[in-house]
Amino acid sequence: MKIVITVVIILILACSATGQTSQASAKSEKTLTANEAIEQIKAHVGVPWQEPTVDTFKAGDPQTRVKGIAVTMMATLDVLQRAAANGQNLIITHEPTFYDHLDNPAQLPQGEDDAVLKQKREFIAEHHLVIWRFHDYWHRRKPDGIEEGNVHALGWEKYQDPANQYLFTIPESTVAKLAEELRAKLHAAVPRIAGDREMKVTRVAFSPGSAGFRRETGALEMPDVQVLIAGETHEWETVEYVTDAHTEGRAKALILLGHIGSEQAGMEECARWLRAFVTNVPIEFVPTADMWAPPANSKPAR
Amino acid sequence: MKIVITVVIILILACSATGQTSQASAKSEKTLTANEAIEQIKAHVGVPWQEPTVDTFKAGDPQTRVKGIAVTMMATLDVLQRAAANGQNLIITHEPTFYDHLDNPAQLPQGEDDAVLKQKREFIAEHHLVIWRFHDYWHRRKPDGIEEGNVHALGWEKYQDPANQYLFTIPESTVAKLAEELRAKLHAAVPRIAGDREMKVTRVAFSPGSAGFRRETGALEMPDVQVLIAGETHEWETVEYVTDAHTEGRAKALILLGHIGSEQAGMEECARWLRAFVTNVPIEFVPTADMWAPPANSKPAR
Repeated sequence: MKIVITVVIILILACSATGQTSQASAKSEKTLTANEAIEQIKAHVGVPWQEPTVDTFKAGDPQTRVKGIAVTMMATLDVLQRAAANGQNLIITHEPTFYDHLDNPAQLPQGEDDAVLKQKREFIAEHHLVIWRFHDYWHRRKPDGIEEGNVHALGWEKYQDPANQYLFTIPESTVAKLAEELRAKLHAAVPRIAGDREMKVTRVAFSPGSAGFRRETGALEMPDVQVLIAGETHEWETVEYVTDAHTEGRAKALILLGHIGSEQAGMEECARWLRAFVTNVPIEFVPTADMWAPPANSKPAR
Repeated sequence: MKIVITVVIILILACSATGQTSQASAKSEKTLTANEAIEQIKAHVGVPWQEPTVDTFKAGDPQTRVKGIAVTMMATLDVLQRAAANGQNLIITHEPTFYDHLDNPAQLPQGEDDAVLKQKREFIAEHHLVIWRFHDYWHRRKPDGIEEGNVHALGWEKYQDPANQYLFTIPESTVAKLAEELRAKLHAAVPRIAGDREMKVTRVAFSPGSAGFRRETGALEMPDVQVLIAGETHEWETVEYVTDAHTEGRAKALILLGHIGSEQAGMEECARWLRAFVTNVPIEFVPTADMWAPPANSKPAR
């Protein structure tokens, strides 16, 4: 119900921002190119599009006709193989394809001659895949699409702070029990805990992905926040900080889910969101295997 | 035996570089200040000292008389408390004290008003501790002091490549068995594996800490390297790369030990190295608790 209302609000915002009508939008979907699909996303996201952003095409020809859309957390080769086998040729990925935030693998010592990179590029070319990243604006959307997906997957709508979507007051639990709930509901293969796992918690901050030291410690500095949930972060920064807070006797703990576990549900949310306005192309959420899960168990769609 | 020879070589190098004699060095130890102790390190490390480096004093008065030296991986408050209780007032730490590579906690939203930081600074002041970081030059030393400690702890001297200290040819194992050996010998609480854990391995690259994408993929690009061991690294960079390499059918895997597990033995090595030329002050290795270990188990010295 909340999602439907949100989509309606965003449609109104998008229309007012771009002057498009929903009929014009529906017309363009009939012969949809990858570029047209992405233009629809830009029109519906409800936040004015500005450069610079990493939300750009990463591979393939944007004029390609879309047969199917695969929405994923990270465009690993494994994801691309499954998408291609499903007949999907537009891949919308939250995280990089080419091992770099700007998808510029120049940091690879062998650059474009790197064998792993070459084989991935060849697979993309052979299957005429088009890859577009949806990172900055899926976070900037109101609400943050990634956080909305996490909330949905956890069933935490009723616990969310109305003034700050990243804060929650949950029924009393312990850090260890909370980590177990997150592991099970978000399919995080190897959650890690810093601090006292038997500590009782009700006030939680959930910062998905890798938001960095400033945002993470900003949450931990809030007097009532007892535990921070995040994806990945540096041990010599946020992890040392929370470890010291624990040593000082403060009620602070950290649960790291891994990057994929902390954001994957947000791209499942993205697939649901897309289906509301891209109606004449099949759209599927293709989960990225958690990199820390045994490959034999992580291959099947979860 | 190898260590003794190495120390002798370094002493010769250091003397030729600085013109100091070992008698002059012994004389200054009698009334050692923190600054004098660090000058001895600079003279013995065998690599000309150049700025900029993070190997600087981070807290306390360098003119403080040294009662005891604590050598550690990361100067967490827990480490500082144990060192102070042992009567050690000079702390030599490989990693930051104040949650930042440059030990400038300006990234904390509350800066110097941050409660966790303030309490740590107060503890340091009350106990008249002096903290100095030994990072860049302990790695730059030949051999890399961190890697030497890892090799010592693993008993891998005979497997080390004479041409590249970070490469090893070990008796045939599997990725999973190797991870278990590393967990046990390096006290890594939560090692994580990407790739095929049943893959047979003999050729190993061990890149301690967080060396970054370029160095890590440089190791993985070597055709014979089957598994990279590291501390921590970004999932959207090296981890995605090794996951793709695995999907392509290449014999590549990654074991992440956590930052502390991957470098701690290198600071135990540093304590041994220091004892060879700082002879009139007690020197102790104070292990940093692995941040992912349950605190109850990690408090006692390991």
